[in-house]
Amino acid sequence: MVVSVPATSANLGPGFDCLGLSLNLRNRFSVIPSVYTSIKIQGEGEGFSKFLVDNIFVKLFKEALQAKGIQENFEFSFTNAIPISRGLGSSSAIIVGALSAIDYYLTHTLDKEEILHASLVHESHPDNITPAVFGGFNVVAVESLPYKENKQRRKQIYHLKTSIPKNLKAVVVIPSHSISTKFSRMALPKRYGSADVIYNLSRVGLMSMIFMQEKWELLKAISKDRLHQDRRMKLYPVLYGVQKLALENGALMSTLSGSGSSFFNMCYAEDAARLQAKLQKKYYNFRVLILDFDNQGVQIEE
Amino acid sequence: MVVSVPATSANLGPGFDCLGLSLNLRNRFSVIPSVYTSIKIQGEGEGFSKFLVDNIFVKLFKEALQAKGIQENFEFSFTNAIPISRGLGSSSAIIVGALSAIDYYLTHTLDKEEILHASLVHESHPDNITPAVFGGFNVVAVESLPYKENKQRRKQIYHLKTSIPKNLKAVVVIPSHSISTKFSRMALPKRYGSADVIYNLSRVGLMSMIFMQEKWELLKAISKDRLHQDRRMKLYPVLYGVQKLALENGALMSTLSGSGSSFFNMCYAEDAARLQAKLQKKYYNFRVLILDFDNQGVQIEE
Repeated sequence: MVVSVPATSANLGPGFDCLGLSLNLRNRFSVIPSVYTSIKIQGEGEGFSKFLVDNIFVKLFKEALQAKGIQENFEFSFTNAIPISRGLGSSSAIIVGALSAIDYYLTHTLDKEEILHASLVHESHPDNITPAVFGGFNVVAVESLPYKENKQRRKQIYHLKTSIPKNLKAVVVIPSHSISTKFSRMALPKRYGSADVIYNLSRVGLMSMIFMQEKWELLKAISKDRLHQDRRMKLYPVLYGVQKLALENGALMSTLSGSGSSFFNMCYAEDAARLQAKLQKKYYNFRVLILDFDNQGVQIEE
Repeated sequence: MVVSVPATSANLGPGFDCLGLSLNLRNRFSVIPSVYTSIKIQGEGEGFSKFLVDNIFVKLFKEALQAKGIQENFEFSFTNAIPISRGLGSSSAIIVGALSAIDYYLTHTLDKEEILHASLVHESHPDNITPAVFGGFNVVAVESLPYKENKQRRKQIYHLKTSIPKNLKAVVVIPSHSISTKFSRMALPKRYGSADVIYNLSRVGLMSMIFMQEKWELLKAISKDRLHQDRRMKLYPVLYGVQKLALENGALMSTLSGSGSSFFNMCYAEDAARLQAKLQKKYYNFRVLILDFDNQGVQIEE
């Protein structure tokens, strides 16, 4: 079987830990029964022995086999398109891919809701794993449930999705450097002033309405943030230039992707090539990709 | 002319200062040229001389006349259905009504967007004035603009609306006591912890999606708040009982209306009579009204 999982961009400006969308840039994980176990990585992560020795996908899959008492070998062949440690959901893709492969071979529930909740145990970013599972633009909330109320799930993800139309494109800027999620999160304060909180609250509501009502012109005014983005961009100040240039050249919104270092820009399809060219010319040592949005999420491809 | 303005319920649980909706409970303000000025109040506020002596509607209207250099007298006759100081937007209704009457007689722009922005100068609750002007469920954000960018408007309200369908009703509990907005706001902290902030952020996004997608069943789980409601309800603890009883008897959501003291409950139309009866029986000294939602906002009726 081959499972493919899309890249994701979370936060989207004001949507700190609660908004995320899916990009048609996919990691393909092939898992085939074999006489002996082997791991092959192509694309992102290729040539790094640590991903062969300590591979999270393989580890999760083997643990699941072990838990079921199954002694079987598999050939793992990964073709990775999602950049690693760039705020594009590569970790979420691995977790969602592994749990989908486990489901395919071992539990056969084929229920995306179950795969989502199983993923949350291993990956604490619901705003990445939800679009990775379902595709589209997603609003997600996590609720901790009392044990007696739900023995299977200690945490419940509430989520609603809307598809992103074809006339929009993502232009993603992928810097040469990473910002570690942990370090990026450490840059954040523990408490926030009420004016900043209300600023973001109102804009998360409007962002959700905008994606439902396709009022894209409002995005430029509304996709600003006062809680997390600025403190994270200060760790890598070149991003201010990326954002400014994008907004001056057709981007409807331009936001830090997850905790960085990538920058997510959304624009009308007809503006994508020009926006990419402008960004690529100035930031010639970064990758600048034009991507379609994905509305499918994780797929078993064969 | 008669201008009618609906009651509004703001906050709606997680939507602290950014979500509001409109109820079909209207104040009707009649303003007719006359040989001498007179003020008559029927319904809410009737018999309170302070509303005759220091009437905000009349004051705003007279100031506008004066600014235009118009010497004319009017007969003001107000039929008020919106309870005063109960978190149902009676102040917003007066402001929006007065500015609509001024527009009708003096400026004739008939532009709701202008009436909204003029109202914000006099009333600091955009989550009340926006649904009062436009009707329906509204997400609102305020942006302070630099003077050079916009000389007319120092503050811009961004807002998106969706209509509320007929199969839903509001069951509003109006206590015999008020909580002053000022006192209620003083009960709130200046800073909030990040977990609580993210809790509300995610739920404001989901509330917006729910009203767009009509996923009403999710409301019960999602309409909770961690920023303002509990601290305000502590000022009037009987409200905990109101909320509990409502949620046990068919309410899809049950939230403090504005800063209180009223409680807003939403339910399917077929559950409204039973919910009202249950609440009225236990809280027999409170008013419990079944109301339709309003999707029109302020109207010039004649």
